[in-house]
Amino acid sequence: MAKPQQTPLFGRLAVIGIGLIGSSIARAAREHNLAGSIAVADASEAHRRQAAELGLADAVHADAADAVRDADLVMLCVPLGAYAAVAAHIGPALKPGAIVSDVGSCKQSVIRDVAPHLPAGVAFVPGHPVAGTEHSGPAAGFAALFGGRWCILTPTPDTDPAATEKLRAFWAACGSRVEMMEPRHHDLVLAITSHVPHLIAYNIVGTADDMETVTQSEVIKYSAGGFRDFTRIAASDPTMWRDVFLNNREAVLEMLGRFTEDLIALQRAIRWGEGDALFDLFTRTRAIRRAIIDAGQETAAPDFGRGAASPTAGSAAPAAAKPAKPKAG
Amino acid sequence: MAKPQQTPLFGRLAVIGIGLIGSSIARAAREHNLAGSIAVADASEAHRRQAAELGLADAVHADAADAVRDADLVMLCVPLGAYAAVAAHIGPALKPGAIVSDVGSCKQSVIRDVAPHLPAGVAFVPGHPVAGTEHSGPAAGFAALFGGRWCILTPTPDTDPAATEKLRAFWAACGSRVEMMEPRHHDLVLAITSHVPHLIAYNIVGTADDMETVTQSEVIKYSAGGFRDFTRIAASDPTMWRDVFLNNREAVLEMLGRFTEDLIALQRAIRWGEGDALFDLFTRTRAIRRAIIDAGQETAAPDFGRGAASPTAGSAAPAAAKPAKPKAG
Repeated sequence: MAKPQQTPLFGRLAVIGIGLIGSSIARAAREHNLAGSIAVADASEAHRRQAAELGLADAVHADAADAVRDADLVMLCVPLGAYAAVAAHIGPALKPGAIVSDVGSCKQSVIRDVAPHLPAGVAFVPGHPVAGTEHSGPAAGFAALFGGRWCILTPTPDTDPAATEKLRAFWAACGSRVEMMEPRHHDLVLAITSHVPHLIAYNIVGTADDMETVTQSEVIKYSAGGFRDFTRIAASDPTMWRDVFLNNREAVLEMLGRFTEDLIALQRAIRWGEGDALFDLFTRTRAIRRAIIDAGQETAAPDFGRGAASPTAGSAAPAAAKPAKPKAG
Repeated sequence: MAKPQQTPLFGRLAVIGIGLIGSSIARAAREHNLAGSIAVADASEAHRRQAAELGLADAVHADAADAVRDADLVMLCVPLGAYAAVAAHIGPALKPGAIVSDVGSCKQSVIRDVAPHLPAGVAFVPGHPVAGTEHSGPAAGFAALFGGRWCILTPTPDTDPAATEKLRAFWAACGSRVEMMEPRHHDLVLAITSHVPHLIAYNIVGTADDMETVTQSEVIKYSAGGFRDFTRIAASDPTMWRDVFLNNREAVLEMLGRFTEDLIALQRAIRWGEGDALFDLFTRTRAIRRAIIDAGQETAAPDFGRGAASPTAGSAAPAAAKPAKPKAG
């Protein structure tokens, strides 16, 4: 992780939406001295109260326009469905020279919803930190959330390159590795690495909940057999994820079509007892897991056993896979 | 966890197949003084060498018949596809009064494959500890693997109740919670809590691996968005899982049919922009996760963020969710 800045990168940072991601950005900005002052806005009274109690900002507003008025960097951290309305509302209050960015999981819809509302002289750098937990709300955030994770920026042809560069520095200071991508390609990549996995997880938890022959208490008791791995991501924020699927429809449907096609083929292999086809797939998938661990995006500790980890396997985890320790926000 | 036995529950324990589960049983039996001596057998020369080096047993055999000859408890820990051949081979060598049990993930096929080969005077108590990690082999095992996990026994009408009781005591001493179940019901419950989740995980990792528009290195880099949760269980032992699907075909196909039906409905909701249907499902699934944590089958720490855990959320984990500490095998 980079050393704290000598002078803040930005004079004033406005965080709109102070949930898991927004509050983590506020904490990281403070910890790494990335903003001279921090203003936050949230439509929820409970969130505003928590943000104030946690000391996440210098000013807490109900109206997003009040938060952005003097801001040099505005971070939109609301669900995707709220982007158009928020952008229309804050547009007239933005200061000339300000940079607007965001953390949304889809980038084409964000450009469609936000860009038209920004006045000339304001730079727009859409962004997406690929990080999170299954918890929600201001108290769930922590400064180290972005450490070692990728942040994808998808500037448009209209984006001022200097603004993109400044945002890259912001995320690098938060410990992120920054990558540039076409918005359309971003939406395809995230459909397969994030959106479809979430949909499948939500779906199987729903299917299990609907069984008549197997009781819910049985599903819960024996979840250590594999099911519980799905419940973790199926516990993610419902509003956020509804909006992801509605706003990345094309890419999600395309990837889902492939997934279903492959699953039907696997189903057929089981029906006809084609053991070799199953064995070949199950062998191939192991290699990908190894690559993810080697890339530092996962630990090698046998977490499928949850905490009852073998000391041998635990100590075999490569140093690169060890995430940064959380620090007090 | 129960205190170590004063006198061993069994004179001699034979473990056939010394992989993750078999070696964990050998370690747990030693740690809790459940057997006067331990013999293991494995068809793999490498496994036998490791078992000897790790000191997992008093005797290591290549021939399973040699291992079971004086055994009071025989634990079959081989892939399901090998059960019939192993049972036919060891049947004549079993000692009168011996108990044969197993750890297979399907129970109807085990009864079909094993029972016909056991001589009169030998009790058969099919069992299934619902525990595991994504690692394989003798070195991956550890004594605490079964702590706090459920072990399901599926005795048949022919099983001597005294033998079932002794096996219950064995698993309880390993720290497991023991449940009785009809074999057919077991196979249904595990199809939805374990087998279908594994199949789906294998499948999406395969789908992602086959993309042309998204590179494998992109899938790996951005896997923290959700995909990596699937790779963990998709790294499980290929032979074991091939045999699970071939031996629990009916129940897996039934559950898979329901899963696919639900997924198609969800796909349609996305296509038609039915946000309420998505939101309702995503809200319902959160409650199940909470119940699994409350049942002690999962921790509440935000592991979706992998290690970069918020101190607040971490300390909020209920004491019941904390798994037993691993001990040296």
